[in-house]
Amino acid sequence: MKNFISAHDVTNIDSLVQSALAYKANPLKDKSLGADKRVGMLFLNPSMRTRLSTQIAAQNLGAESIVFNVDKEGWALEFEEEAIMSGNTVEHVKDAAPIMGKYFDILCIRTFPSLKNKEDDYSELYINQFIKYSGIPVVSLESATLHPLQSLTDIITITEVMGGVTGIGGAKGVGGAKDAGGATGAGDATGIGGAKPLGGPIGVSGRKPKIVLTWAPHVKALPQCVANSFSQWVNAWGKADFVITHPEDYELDTKFTNGAKIIYDQDEALKDADFVYVKNWSTYTDYGKIYSDDREWMLTNEKLALTNNAKVMHCLPVRRNVELSDEILDGPSSIVTQEAGNRVWAAQAVLAELLKGGK
Amino acid sequence: MKNFISAHDVTNIDSLVQSALAYKANPLKDKSLGADKRVGMLFLNPSMRTRLSTQIAAQNLGAESIVFNVDKEGWALEFEEEAIMSGNTVEHVKDAAPIMGKYFDILCIRTFPSLKNKEDDYSELYINQFIKYSGIPVVSLESATLHPLQSLTDIITITEVMGGVTGIGGAKGVGGAKDAGGATGAGDATGIGGAKPLGGPIGVSGRKPKIVLTWAPHVKALPQCVANSFSQWVNAWGKADFVITHPEDYELDTKFTNGAKIIYDQDEALKDADFVYVKNWSTYTDYGKIYSDDREWMLTNEKLALTNNAKVMHCLPVRRNVELSDEILDGPSSIVTQEAGNRVWAAQAVLAELLKGGK
Amino acid sequence: MKNFISAHDVTNIDSLVQSALAYKANPLKDKSLGADKRVGMLFLNPSMRTRLSTQIAAQNLGAESIVFNVDKEGWALEFEEEAIMSGNTVEHVKDAAPIMGKYFDILCIRTFPSLKNKEDDYSELYINQFIKYSGIPVVSLESATLHPLQSLTDIITITEVMGGVTGIGGAKGVGGAKDAGGATGAGDATGIGGAKPLGGPIGVSGRKPKIVLTWAPHVKALPQCVANSFSQWVNAWGKADFVITHPEDYELDTKFTNGAKIIYDQDEALKDADFVYVKNWSTYTDYGKIYSDDREWMLTNEKLALTNNAKVMHCLPVRRNVELSDEILDGPSSIVTQEAGNRVWAAQAVLAELLKGGK
Repeated sequence: MKNFISAHDVTNIDSLVQSALAYKANPLKDKSLGADKRVGMLFLNPSMRTRLSTQIAAQNLGAESIVFNVDKEGWALEFEEEAIMSGNTVEHVKDAAPIMGKYFDILCIRTFPSLKNKEDDYSELYINQFIKYSGIPVVSLESATLHPLQSLTDIITITEVMGGVTGIGGAKGVGGAKDAGGATGAGDATGIGGAKPLGGPIGVSGRKPKIVLTWAPHVKALPQCVANSFSQWVNAWGKADFVITHPEDYELDTKFTNGAKIIYDQDEALKDADFVYVKNWSTYTDYGKIYSDDREWMLTNEKLALTNNAKVMHCLPVRRNVELSDEILDGPSSIVTQEAGNRVWAAQAVLAELLKGGK
Repeated sequence: MKNFISAHDVTNIDSLVQSALAYKANPLKDKSLGADKRVGMLFLNPSMRTRLSTQIAAQNLGAESIVFNVDKEGWALEFEEEAIMSGNTVEHVKDAAPIMGKYFDILCIRTFPSLKNKEDDYSELYINQFIKYSGIPVVSLESATLHPLQSLTDIITITEVMGGVTGIGGAKGVGGAKDAGGATGAGDATGIGGAKPLGGPIGVSGRKPKIVLTWAPHVKALPQCVANSFSQWVNAWGKADFVITHPEDYELDTKFTNGAKIIYDQDEALKDADFVYVKNWSTYTDYGKIYSDDREWMLTNEKLALTNNAKVMHCLPVRRNVELSDEILDGPSSIVTQEAGNRVWAAQAVLAELLKGGK
Repeated sequence: MKNFISAHDVTNIDSLVQSALAYKANPLKDKSLGADKRVGMLFLNPSMRTRLSTQIAAQNLGAESIVFNVDKEGWALEFEEEAIMSGNTVEHVKDAAPIMGKYFDILCIRTFPSLKNKEDDYSELYINQFIKYSGIPVVSLESATLHPLQSLTDIITITEVMGGVTGIGGAKGVGGAKDAGGATGAGDATGIGGAKPLGGPIGVSGRKPKIVLTWAPHVKALPQCVANSFSQWVNAWGKADFVITHPEDYELDTKFTNGAKIIYDQDEALKDADFVYVKNWSTYTDYGKIYSDDREWMLTNEKLALTNNAKVMHCLPVRRNVELSDEILDGPSSIVTQEAGNRVWAAQAVLAELLKGGK
């Protein structure tokens, strides 16, 4: 793995998932791996879970990390080649990135799309320029179109819940075991398949889980990153029956969704689902618009009854009672906290892989 | 001690004070206590001394700390139960706090009052929601109505000045001894009782010190936190004659002040004081107002002459020549720097207690 | 060295340069020097390279560092003596600085000029007040009129390029050698004197290099700091033929430039230069103005042909195609990345010197 920008950077998703779960069981087992290594974390946009979990992951590996909020502590960067910089941008990525490459061993970057120009956003100019000019491994902390650390976390969490991993005891960020996970169903990971067993438990029996990515209403125009990325990873993983449901004209880029079944009727889509992944996104085709804020798309217990006792996932932050109801988030089906907790182990597995790869 | 939110969380204030003074004498004596522990520090409002001293305290204990400015690096949190989040708040504390509980071993939080709605502020909704949902020990870095780390620091400083602690050599944040403190009067701690001894030195002789909390003018409407908290702690400590003086209609919540004598005449109140604690606050009864900016309430050397050679305290930041005159702050009676320096040891004693308590 | 504010704080520039190059060869050789020491880094203005490199330097020395963005995480400081603080400033440096002196072993500060009042800016009130009141060594991370860490870096880089240092293998921020430097011409450091040798290579042969500081156009009124400071350091170093070229009425303070030859004709100035240092600054005499944005002053390959195959330097950030052309920055003459990389070693040499000096 040279960089960590999309599912395509990973040769074996399952092996990365197992690495993450091994860190969950024993967070400090590679405490010396990052000795005298330094991870730079550049934020061009706000972040909470991603920043904290990646910083913690670096600490668990014994690496130093430095957080720099480019937009607030620094100044506006220029990304266009041959720009005549007489406007608002103060420094070109061609000058900033090589220096990051001298200062750090791994460079992590968060950058959002403009949602104004589809070609620009989908060219991933910002993060690609950092890759091109920094000369060191680059980790996406969410880019214009993808959010790979979130998606890896999601596959980790699905794997855990499926009980496909035995003998793993989950553990706290640093030190002692807190969450017991794995196939025992204790702690974070609750086995699936109670209410409506369809030929036995998924994972163990070999039955593929049905995963439904459902659009949800929101008050703002949001990026397509999480939905794109989840689609890309579930497809690359290849171990699920994957359904995407959304209002008409909310199609995502087929580059990411090809392989999934698209169903416009949410109720039909939810039927017998083992996992429901809830997320809002703005329109892709007619770029960055809100066509609907139809609250009927918000997941409720009534809708959840259509599923196979599905676990409900969300990347957070979530607008309660807009995107997802209190009754779901506070109920037994929600695994959003387990999912967010797993962010640490996803980041740790990725940083470890890059650190092992050497420079 | 499960959390550190108010004086009521502490079973023995004197014992916590002695623990702090022991850290002042030997900052690194428990350097391994925090090994592989992580302290999260969330700021919903600005902070200087509190942030720096708590971060240093964590480092002295060998713990990792991560600072996160929620308002600047993240987004607005929602605290109301059952909120329909279609407004400006992006994430509910019910979702954010449990994740902090997974990421950290101790959670420190600063949050200010609105000064608009008394019931809301005095319900301490924000910090209580973090306690309710994080599942780990919570330390207040100042909340809507209280500032317990400041008040603990104040009792530490008063104890030091009273010479009640012998054989303690004060020491610098990290490493070698810098300030000599304690009963010898060298360094930080200057013994009291020179000019007007009233039956011998306080502390040593058993005489209770007279502590006067005086209102001071200011240009902005400030929270009542520091004044509330100082009152609560001095009363809980129980080792002082405690007087509060302020203009009429500036009464604080009696929940905190009961036990103190309220005197509207500042000159009368100051008479024979051993310590004068200076602070502005906005009105409590008719909530959050400025009734007076009467500069006559600013402490001067002339007024100080009424006291028993009192030491002058302030939590800082202080508006010079508005709240407190240059002549006082730059003169021999001021112990504000000693007081601010002690913030490290207060925080260290509290974090150590929580770390020892285990999870 | 008590503080690091200007070239005058350094008794032997060459010795500090050699110390920096030794750290470049072996970044972690003094990893225990900063054990249990704490470096405070206060930013009253934005910074990227300076902040990151100084933080890395502290880490390389095993010291803890704490970054505090005073303007964003704290509040406005007051610097005027006897101020009546009823305005926007919340805390006086007289109160803040002594506490920094208690919390930290070394205090690093960045503060910019107003560019409105020359006397105020050139009195260096802000940083001098921190020196006066903190009681610990103060390091300038750029002040109102000077930028000494940048200038030290510049002399280090010039020394490296001149090949005056043999047997030095450059190395990465942490750990293993990445850039090979020194007289071999590998990695960062490229020997000079290929195209137009004038009596043999500079440095080795004893010939003084010709260094030209040239004004460049910009869109904003910038401080004179970098130009002042570069002039002061090159003059103090005393090992170069030093020429400054700028449009008329852009004279810098002679306090810093005395010893350099001022030439208004850029082409004439550039002739046979070994190093061209490019920088914009606003007018000094009629303070803080932009008299010219004449793009003819932008360095191009055509102008570079006038030089002795000169290396081109810039402190960054640089406005591409305004201050400096792409063709220069992306071409073989530019050493701006090498220069920026050397910021780490400059900071490390300075912090080490101060740490060795004891308290």
